[in-house]
Amino acid sequence: MTSANEIPDIVIGRLPIYLRALTQLAQQGHEITSSHELGQRLGISSAQIRKDLSHFGEFGKQGTGYQISHLQQQLKQILQVNREWPMIVVGAGDLGRAIAHYGGFVERGFRVVSLFDSDPAKINTGSGDLKVRDAAHMADFVREHNIKIAMVAVPATHAQAVCNTLVEAGVRAILNYAPITLSVPDTVHVQYIDPVTHLQRMTYYLE
Amino acid sequence: MTSANEIPDIVIGRLPIYLRALTQLAQQGHEITSSHELGQRLGISSAQIRKDLSHFGEFGKQGTGYQISHLQQQLKQILQVNREWPMIVVGAGDLGRAIAHYGGFVERGFRVVSLFDSDPAKINTGSGDLKVRDAAHMADFVREHNIKIAMVAVPATHAQAVCNTLVEAGVRAILNYAPITLSVPDTVHVQYIDPVTHLQRMTYYLE
Repeated sequence: MTSANEIPDIVIGRLPIYLRALTQLAQQGHEITSSHELGQRLGISSAQIRKDLSHFGEFGKQGTGYQISHLQQQLKQILQVNREWPMIVVGAGDLGRAIAHYGGFVERGFRVVSLFDSDPAKINTGSGDLKVRDAAHMADFVREHNIKIAMVAVPATHAQAVCNTLVEAGVRAILNYAPITLSVPDTVHVQYIDPVTHLQRMTYYLE
Repeated sequence: MTSANEIPDIVIGRLPIYLRALTQLAQQGHEITSSHELGQRLGISSAQIRKDLSHFGEFGKQGTGYQISHLQQQLKQILQVNREWPMIVVGAGDLGRAIAHYGGFVERGFRVVSLFDSDPAKINTGSGDLKVRDAAHMADFVREHNIKIAMVAVPATHAQAVCNTLVEAGVRAILNYAPITLSVPDTVHVQYIDPVTHLQRMTYYLE
Protein backbone atom coordinates (compact mmCIF):
# COMPACT_ATOMS: atom_id res chain seq x y z
CA MET A 1 0.00 0.00 0.00
CA THR A 2 1.42 3.39 -0.95
CA SER A 3 0.06 6.74 0.10
CA ALA A 4 0.31 9.95 -1.91
CA ASN A 5 3.03 11.46 0.27
CA GLU A 6 5.06 8.28 0.71
CA ILE A 7 8.62 8.73 -0.47
CA PRO A 8 9.51 6.43 -3.39
CA ASP A 9 11.73 3.51 -2.39
CA ILE A 10 14.13 4.40 -5.20
CA VAL A 11 14.77 7.73 -3.44
CA ILE A 12 15.37 5.93 -0.14
CA GLY A 13 17.79 3.68 -2.02
CA ARG A 14 19.92 6.66 -3.06
CA LEU A 15 20.23 8.15 0.44
CA PRO A 16 22.85 5.60 1.60
CA ILE A 17 24.89 6.45 -1.51
CA TYR A 18 24.73 10.14 -0.64
CA LEU A 19 25.67 9.39 2.96
CA ARG A 20 28.64 7.31 1.84
CA ALA A 21 29.88 10.08 -0.47
CA LEU A 22 29.49 12.68 2.27
CA THR A 23 31.48 10.51 4.66
CA GLN A 24 34.23 10.20 2.08
CA LEU A 25 34.25 13.98 1.51
CA ALA A 26 34.46 14.59 5.26
CA GLN A 27 37.36 12.14 5.56
CA GLN A 28 39.11 14.09 2.82
CA GLY A 29 38.77 17.24 4.91
CA HIS A 30 35.86 18.94 3.14
CA GLU A 31 33.28 20.80 5.22
CA ILE A 32 30.94 22.09 2.52
CA THR A 33 29.69 20.44 -0.64
CA SER A 34 27.08 21.09 -3.32
CA SER A 35 24.59 19.02 -5.25
CA HIS A 36 26.82 19.67 -8.25
CA GLU A 37 29.94 18.25 -6.56
CA LEU A 38 28.05 15.26 -5.16
CA GLY A 39 26.48 14.64 -8.54
CA GLN A 40 29.85 14.72 -10.28
CA ARG A 41 31.23 12.18 -7.84
CA LEU A 42 28.26 9.86 -8.09
CA GLY A 43 27.26 10.18 -11.73
CA ILE A 44 23.84 11.46 -10.68
CA SER A 45 22.42 14.80 -11.83
CA SER A 46 22.51 17.63 -9.33
CA ALA A 47 18.79 18.22 -9.99
CA GLN A 48 18.06 14.62 -8.95
CA ILE A 49 20.01 15.04 -5.73
CA ARG A 50 18.24 18.29 -4.85
CA LYS A 51 14.88 16.72 -5.61
CA ASP A 52 15.65 13.61 -3.54
CA LEU A 53 16.75 15.67 -0.54
CA SER A 54 13.80 18.06 -0.84
CA HIS A 55 11.50 15.22 0.27
CA PHE A 56 13.00 15.64 3.75
CA GLY A 57 13.16 19.42 4.10
CA GLU A 58 15.75 22.09 3.46
CA PHE A 59 19.39 21.07 3.88
CA GLY A 60 21.20 23.82 2.03
CA LYS A 61 20.73 27.29 0.68
CA GLN A 62 20.93 28.18 -3.01
CA GLY A 63 24.51 29.23 -3.67
CA THR A 64 25.98 28.24 -0.31
CA GLY A 65 25.83 24.47 -0.63
CA TYR A 66 25.42 21.85 2.07
CA GLN A 67 27.26 21.71 5.37
CA ILE A 68 28.57 18.15 5.18
CA SER A 69 28.45 17.24 8.87
CA HIS A 70 24.88 18.53 9.18
CA LEU A 71 23.67 16.66 6.10
CA GLN A 72 25.41 13.48 7.32
CA GLN A 73 23.60 13.71 10.65
CA GLN A 74 20.26 14.33 8.97
CA LEU A 75 20.67 11.39 6.59
CA LYS A 76 21.73 9.12 9.46
CA GLN A 77 18.61 10.11 11.35
CA ILE A 78 16.35 9.59 8.34
CA LEU A 79 17.88 6.17 7.67
CA GLN A 80 17.82 5.37 11.39
CA VAL A 81 21.52 4.57 11.49
CA ASN A 82 22.38 7.10 14.19
CA ARG A 83 22.39 4.01 16.42
CA GLU A 84 23.84 0.50 16.21
CA TRP A 85 21.70 -2.34 14.85
CA PRO A 86 22.67 -5.84 16.01
CA MET A 87 22.60 -8.35 13.15
CA ILE A 88 23.13 -12.05 12.73
CA VAL A 89 24.74 -13.87 9.81
CA VAL A 90 23.32 -17.24 8.79
CA GLY A 91 25.71 -19.53 6.95
CA ALA A 92 29.33 -19.97 8.01
CA GLY A 93 30.83 -20.91 4.65
CA ASP A 94 33.56 -18.80 3.05
CA LEU A 95 31.15 -15.99 2.21
CA GLY A 96 29.27 -15.99 5.52
CA ARG A 97 32.50 -15.85 7.48
CA ALA A 98 33.87 -13.07 5.28
CA ILE A 99 30.68 -11.06 5.82
CA ALA A 100 30.68 -11.70 9.56
CA HIS A 101 34.25 -10.44 9.82
CA TYR A 102 33.79 -7.44 7.54
CA GLY A 103 35.17 -4.39 9.32
CA GLY A 104 32.98 -1.79 7.64
CA PHE A 105 29.70 -2.27 9.50
CA VAL A 106 30.24 -0.63 12.87
CA GLU A 107 31.01 2.88 11.70
CA ARG A 108 27.91 2.81 9.50
CA GLY A 109 25.32 1.66 12.04
CA PHE A 110 25.55 -2.13 12.26
CA ARG A 111 27.24 -4.87 14.28
CA VAL A 112 27.32 -8.59 13.61
CA VAL A 113 26.55 -10.20 16.96
CA SER A 114 26.34 -13.85 15.99
CA LEU A 115 26.99 -16.34 13.20
CA PHE A 116 24.91 -19.50 12.70
CA ASP A 117 25.25 -22.70 10.71
CA SER A 118 23.62 -26.12 10.81
CA ASP A 119 26.75 -28.06 9.81
CA PRO A 120 28.19 -29.90 12.86
CA ALA A 121 31.67 -29.52 11.32
CA LYS A 122 31.31 -25.72 11.52
CA ILE A 123 29.47 -25.28 14.83
CA ASN A 124 31.75 -24.01 17.62
CA THR A 125 34.54 -23.09 15.20
CA GLY A 126 35.77 -19.48 15.35
CA SER A 127 35.95 -17.39 18.49
CA GLY A 128 34.24 -14.67 20.52
CA ASP A 129 30.92 -13.31 19.26
CA LEU A 130 31.65 -14.94 15.94
CA LYS A 131 32.04 -18.46 17.23
CA VAL A 132 29.64 -20.39 14.99
CA ARG A 133 26.43 -21.28 16.82
CA ASP A 134 24.05 -24.10 16.04
CA ALA A 135 21.27 -22.89 13.73
CA ALA A 136 18.86 -24.90 15.87
CA HIS A 137 19.18 -22.11 18.46
CA MET A 138 18.84 -19.29 15.94
CA ALA A 139 15.17 -18.48 16.48
CA ASP A 140 15.64 -18.33 20.26
CA PHE A 141 18.63 -16.04 19.84
CA VAL A 142 16.66 -13.70 17.57
CA ARG A 143 13.83 -13.49 20.08
CA GLU A 144 16.04 -13.08 23.16
CA HIS A 145 18.19 -10.36 21.61
CA ASN A 146 15.39 -8.68 19.67
CA ILE A 147 17.29 -9.05 16.40
CA LYS A 148 15.57 -7.31 13.47
CA ILE A 149 18.20 -7.77 10.76
CA ALA A 150 19.81 -10.89 9.32
CA MET A 151 22.23 -11.57 6.50
CA VAL A 152 21.64 -14.91 4.81
CA ALA A 153 24.58 -16.65 3.13
CA VAL A 154 23.35 -20.23 2.87
CA PRO A 155 22.94 -22.35 -0.30
CA ALA A 156 19.99 -21.38 -2.50
CA THR A 157 18.21 -24.62 -1.61
CA HIS A 158 18.13 -23.66 2.09
CA ALA A 159 17.52 -19.92 1.85
CA GLN A 160 13.71 -19.89 1.90
CA ALA A 161 13.50 -22.20 4.92
CA VAL A 162 16.06 -20.09 6.82
CA CYS A 163 14.15 -16.97 5.86
CA ASN A 164 10.87 -18.44 7.16
CA THR A 165 12.47 -19.27 10.51
CA LEU A 166 13.96 -15.79 10.80
CA VAL A 167 10.71 -14.04 9.95
CA GLU A 168 8.72 -16.14 12.38
CA ALA A 169 11.20 -15.25 15.12
CA GLY A 170 10.85 -11.52 14.46
CA VAL A 171 13.43 -10.54 11.85
CA ARG A 172 12.12 -7.68 9.68
CA ALA A 173 15.00 -7.03 7.28
CA ILE A 174 16.96 -9.67 5.37
CA LEU A 175 20.01 -9.15 3.21
CA ASN A 176 20.01 -12.27 1.06
CA TYR A 177 23.22 -13.49 -0.57
CA ALA A 178 21.64 -16.68 -1.91
CA PRO A 179 20.82 -16.35 -5.62
CA ILE A 180 17.06 -16.79 -5.31
CA THR A 181 14.14 -14.46 -4.78
CA LEU A 182 12.65 -14.97 -1.31
CA SER A 183 8.99 -14.97 -0.48
CA VAL A 184 8.21 -12.90 2.62
CA PRO A 185 5.22 -11.16 4.23
CA ASP A 186 4.62 -7.48 3.39
CA THR A 187 6.00 -6.48 6.79
CA VAL A 188 9.46 -7.85 5.97
CA HIS A 189 12.06 -6.14 3.79
CA VAL A 190 14.49 -8.07 1.63
CA GLN A 191 17.48 -6.82 -0.28
CA TYR A 192 19.62 -8.98 -2.53
CA ILE A 193 23.31 -9.30 -3.18
CA ASP A 194 24.01 -11.52 -6.15
CA PRO A 195 27.24 -10.60 -7.95
CA VAL A 196 26.17 -12.44 -11.10
CA THR A 197 23.18 -10.16 -11.70
CA HIS A 198 25.56 -7.19 -11.58
CA LEU A 199 28.04 -8.91 -13.90
CA GLN A 200 25.32 -9.83 -16.40
CA ARG A 201 24.06 -6.26 -16.40
CA MET A 202 27.52 -5.20 -17.56
CA THR A 203 28.22 -7.92 -20.14
CA TYR A 204 25.17 -6.67 -22.06
CA TYR A 205 27.26 -3.62 -22.95
CA LEU A 206 30.59 -5.32 -23.71
CA GLU A 207 31.79 -5.73 -27.29
CA MET B 1 25.05 9.70 -24.92
CA THR B 2 21.65 8.02 -25.30
CA SER B 3 19.76 7.52 -28.50
CA ALA B 4 15.99 7.38 -28.83
CA ASN B 5 15.85 3.61 -29.29
CA GLU B 6 18.45 2.76 -26.66
CA ILE B 7 17.05 0.42 -24.02
CA PRO B 8 17.02 1.97 -20.55
CA ASP B 9 19.71 0.57 -18.25
CA ILE B 10 17.09 -0.11 -15.59
CA VAL B 11 15.44 -2.55 -18.02
CA ILE B 12 18.80 -4.24 -18.68
CA GLY B 13 19.22 -4.48 -14.91
CA ARG B 14 16.03 -6.52 -14.57
CA LEU B 15 16.92 -9.08 -17.26
CA PRO B 16 19.39 -10.98 -15.03
CA ILE B 17 16.65 -11.21 -12.38
CA TYR B 18 14.25 -12.68 -14.95
CA LEU B 19 16.93 -15.09 -16.14
CA ARG B 20 17.62 -16.21 -12.58
CA ALA B 21 13.92 -16.81 -11.90
CA LEU B 22 13.54 -18.77 -15.16
CA THR B 23 16.51 -20.95 -14.24
CA GLN B 24 14.94 -21.64 -10.87
CA LEU B 25 11.60 -22.52 -12.51
CA ALA B 26 13.36 -24.85 -14.96
CA GLN B 27 15.19 -26.55 -12.08
CA GLN B 28 11.84 -27.10 -10.42
CA GLY B 29 10.62 -28.89 -13.53
CA HIS B 30 8.51 -26.16 -15.11
CA GLU B 31 8.53 -25.80 -18.92
CA ILE B 32 6.11 -22.91 -19.40
CA THR B 33 5.61 -19.73 -17.39
CA SER B 34 3.75 -16.46 -17.71
CA SER B 35 4.47 -12.82 -16.98
CA HIS B 36 1.92 -13.20 -14.17
CA GLU B 37 3.77 -16.12 -12.55
CA LEU B 38 7.17 -14.46 -12.96
CA GLY B 39 5.78 -11.24 -11.55
CA GLN B 40 4.34 -13.01 -8.51
CA ARG B 41 7.69 -14.62 -7.80
CA LEU B 42 9.66 -11.43 -8.24
CA GLY B 43 7.32 -8.82 -6.81
CA ILE B 44 7.26 -7.05 -10.19
CA SER B 45 4.05 -6.33 -12.11
CA SER B 46 3.32 -8.60 -15.07
CA ALA B 47 2.81 -5.49 -17.22
CA GLN B 48 6.35 -4.36 -16.39
CA ILE B 49 7.78 -7.75 -17.34
CA ARG B 50 5.91 -7.80 -20.66
CA LYS B 51 7.02 -4.26 -21.41
CA ASP B 52 10.66 -5.01 -20.54
CA LEU B 53 10.73 -8.10 -22.75
CA SER B 54 8.94 -6.34 -25.61
CA HIS B 55 12.07 -4.25 -26.18
CA PHE B 56 13.68 -7.39 -27.55
CA GLY B 57 10.90 -8.87 -29.66
CA GLU B 58 8.16 -11.41 -29.13
CA PHE B 59 8.88 -14.18 -26.65
CA GLY B 60 5.41 -15.47 -25.88
CA LYS B 61 1.89 -15.46 -27.22
CA GLN B 62 -1.04 -13.94 -25.38
CA GLY B 63 -2.64 -16.73 -23.37
CA THR B 64 0.01 -19.39 -23.95
CA GLY B 65 2.83 -17.92 -21.86
CA TYR B 66 6.56 -18.23 -22.33
CA GLN B 67 8.47 -21.40 -23.11
CA ILE B 68 11.05 -21.24 -20.32
CA SER B 69 14.02 -22.81 -22.13
CA HIS B 70 13.52 -20.55 -25.14
CA LEU B 71 13.27 -17.40 -23.05
CA GLN B 72 16.35 -18.45 -21.05
CA GLN B 73 18.34 -18.85 -24.25
CA GLN B 74 17.15 -15.51 -25.59
CA LEU B 75 18.02 -13.67 -22.39
CA LYS B 76 21.44 -15.33 -22.25
CA GLN B 77 22.07 -14.17 -25.79
CA ILE B 78 20.90 -10.62 -25.09
CA LEU B 79 23.06 -10.43 -21.96
CA GLN B 80 25.95 -12.11 -23.80
CA VAL B 81 26.29 -14.83 -21.19
CA ASN B 82 25.84 -17.73 -23.64
CA ARG B 83 29.63 -17.99 -23.34
CA GLU B 84 32.15 -17.94 -20.47
CA TRP B 85 33.78 -14.66 -19.44
CA PRO B 86 37.15 -14.95 -17.71
CA MET B 87 37.43 -12.63 -14.72
CA ILE B 88 40.06 -11.69 -12.18
CA VAL B 89 39.59 -10.87 -8.52
CA VAL B 90 41.78 -8.18 -6.98
CA GLY B 91 42.25 -8.39 -3.23
CA ALA B 92 42.88 -11.69 -1.44
CA GLY B 93 41.47 -10.81 1.96
CA ASP B 94 38.56 -12.78 3.45
CA LEU B 95 36.07 -11.28 1.01
CA GLY B 96 38.25 -11.53 -2.10
CA ARG B 97 39.01 -15.17 -1.40
CA ALA B 98 35.35 -15.95 -0.72
CA ILE B 99 34.39 -14.32 -4.03
CA ALA B 100 37.15 -16.11 -5.94
CA HIS B 101 35.96 -19.47 -4.61
CA TYR B 102 32.25 -18.82 -5.09
CA GLY B 103 30.76 -21.77 -6.94
CA GLY B 104 27.91 -19.94 -8.62
CA PHE B 105 29.74 -18.17 -11.45
CA VAL B 106 30.40 -20.89 -14.02
CA GLU B 107 26.83 -21.95 -14.70
CA ARG B 108 25.89 -18.31 -15.23
CA GLY B 109 28.57 -17.25 -17.70
CA PHE B 110 31.68 -16.40 -15.69
CA ARG B 111 34.90 -17.97 -14.42
CA VAL B 112 37.44 -16.53 -12.02
CA VAL B 113 40.80 -17.21 -13.64
CA SER B 114 43.13 -15.40 -11.27
CA LEU B 115 43.37 -13.68 -7.89
CA PHE B 116 45.78 -10.82 -7.17
CA ASP B 117 47.08 -9.06 -4.09
CA SER B 118 50.00 -6.76 -3.34
CA ASP B 119 50.63 -8.13 0.18
CA PRO B 120 53.79 -10.31 0.20
CA ALA B 121 52.23 -12.36 3.01
CA LYS B 122 49.37 -13.36 0.67
CA ILE B 123 51.21 -13.78 -2.64
CA ASN B 124 51.65 -17.44 -3.61
CA THR B 125 49.20 -18.68 -0.97
CA GLY B 126 46.31 -20.81 -2.22
CA SER B 127 46.53 -23.27 -5.09
CA GLY B 128 45.75 -23.82 -8.75
CA ASP B 129 44.25 -20.94 -10.73
CA LEU B 130 43.46 -19.26 -7.44
CA LYS B 131 46.99 -19.18 -6.12
CA VAL B 132 47.41 -15.50 -5.22
CA ARG B 133 49.51 -13.66 -7.76
CA ASP B 134 51.52 -10.49 -7.26
CA ALA B 135 49.43 -7.44 -8.19
CA ALA B 136 52.54 -6.04 -9.86
CA HIS B 137 51.86 -8.53 -12.68
CA MET B 138 48.13 -7.80 -12.88
CA ALA B 139 48.17 -5.41 -15.85
CA ASP B 140 50.29 -7.83 -17.90
CA PHE B 141 47.95 -10.68 -17.06
CA VAL B 142 44.90 -8.63 -18.12
CA ARG B 143 46.53 -7.78 -21.45
CA GLU B 144 47.84 -11.28 -22.16
CA HIS B 145 44.55 -12.98 -21.38
CA ASN B 146 42.32 -10.26 -22.81
CA ILE B 147 40.45 -9.93 -19.50
CA LYS B 148 37.48 -7.56 -19.71
CA ILE B 149 35.95 -8.06 -16.26
CA ALA B 150 37.41 -7.62 -12.76
CA MET B 151 36.02 -7.85 -9.26
CA VAL B 152 37.70 -5.46 -6.85
CA ALA B 153 37.78 -6.37 -3.15
CA VAL B 154 40.57 -4.15 -1.85
CA PRO B 155 40.39 -1.51 0.92
CA ALA B 156 38.59 1.70 -0.06
CA THR B 157 41.86 3.61 0.05
CA HIS B 158 43.34 1.42 -2.72
CA ALA B 159 40.30 0.89 -4.92
CA GLN B 160 40.67 3.88 -7.26
CA ALA B 161 44.34 3.14 -7.98
CA VAL B 162 43.56 -0.53 -8.69
CA CYS B 163 40.69 0.55 -10.91
CA ASN B 164 42.94 2.89 -12.89
CA THR B 165 45.47 0.12 -13.49
CA LEU B 166 42.75 -2.28 -14.60
CA VAL B 167 41.17 0.20 -16.97
CA GLU B 168 44.48 1.13 -18.52
CA ALA B 169 45.18 -2.55 -19.13
CA GLY B 170 41.87 -3.04 -20.92
CA VAL B 171 39.26 -4.01 -18.32
CA ARG B 172 35.82 -2.71 -19.32
CA ALA B 173 33.58 -3.92 -16.48
CA ILE B 174 34.33 -3.65 -12.77
CA LEU B 175 32.33 -5.08 -9.92
CA ASN B 176 33.51 -2.99 -6.99
CA TYR B 177 33.17 -4.29 -3.43
CA ALA B 178 35.05 -1.36 -1.89
CA PRO B 179 32.65 1.15 -0.33
CA ILE B 180 33.53 4.09 -2.56
CA THR B 181 32.30 5.43 -5.88
CA LEU B 182 34.93 4.91 -8.57
CA SER B 183 35.78 7.39 -11.28
CA VAL B 184 36.09 5.72 -14.71
CA PRO B 185 35.96 6.71 -18.39
CA ASP B 186 32.60 6.50 -20.19
CA THR B 187 33.72 3.32 -21.92
CA VAL B 188 33.97 1.42 -18.63
CA HIS B 189 31.04 -0.01 -16.66
CA VAL B 190 31.05 -0.20 -12.88
CA GLN B 191 28.60 -1.95 -10.59
CA TYR B 192 28.76 -1.79 -6.81
CA ILE B 193 28.28 -4.28 -4.03
CA ASP B 194 28.18 -2.59 -0.65
CA PRO B 195 26.06 -4.47 1.88
CA VAL B 196 25.72 -1.40 4.09
CA THR B 197 23.85 0.59 1.44
CA HIS B 198 21.32 -2.27 1.25
CA LEU B 199 21.05 -2.48 5.03
CA GLN B 200 20.53 1.27 5.39
CA ARG B 201 17.83 1.18 2.73
CA MET B 202 15.95 -1.27 4.96
CA THR B 203 16.49 0.37 8.35
CA TYR B 204 14.62 3.41 7.01
CA TYR B 205 11.47 1.28 7.17
CA LEU B 206 12.04 -0.42 10.53
CA GLU B 207 10.07 0.63 13.59
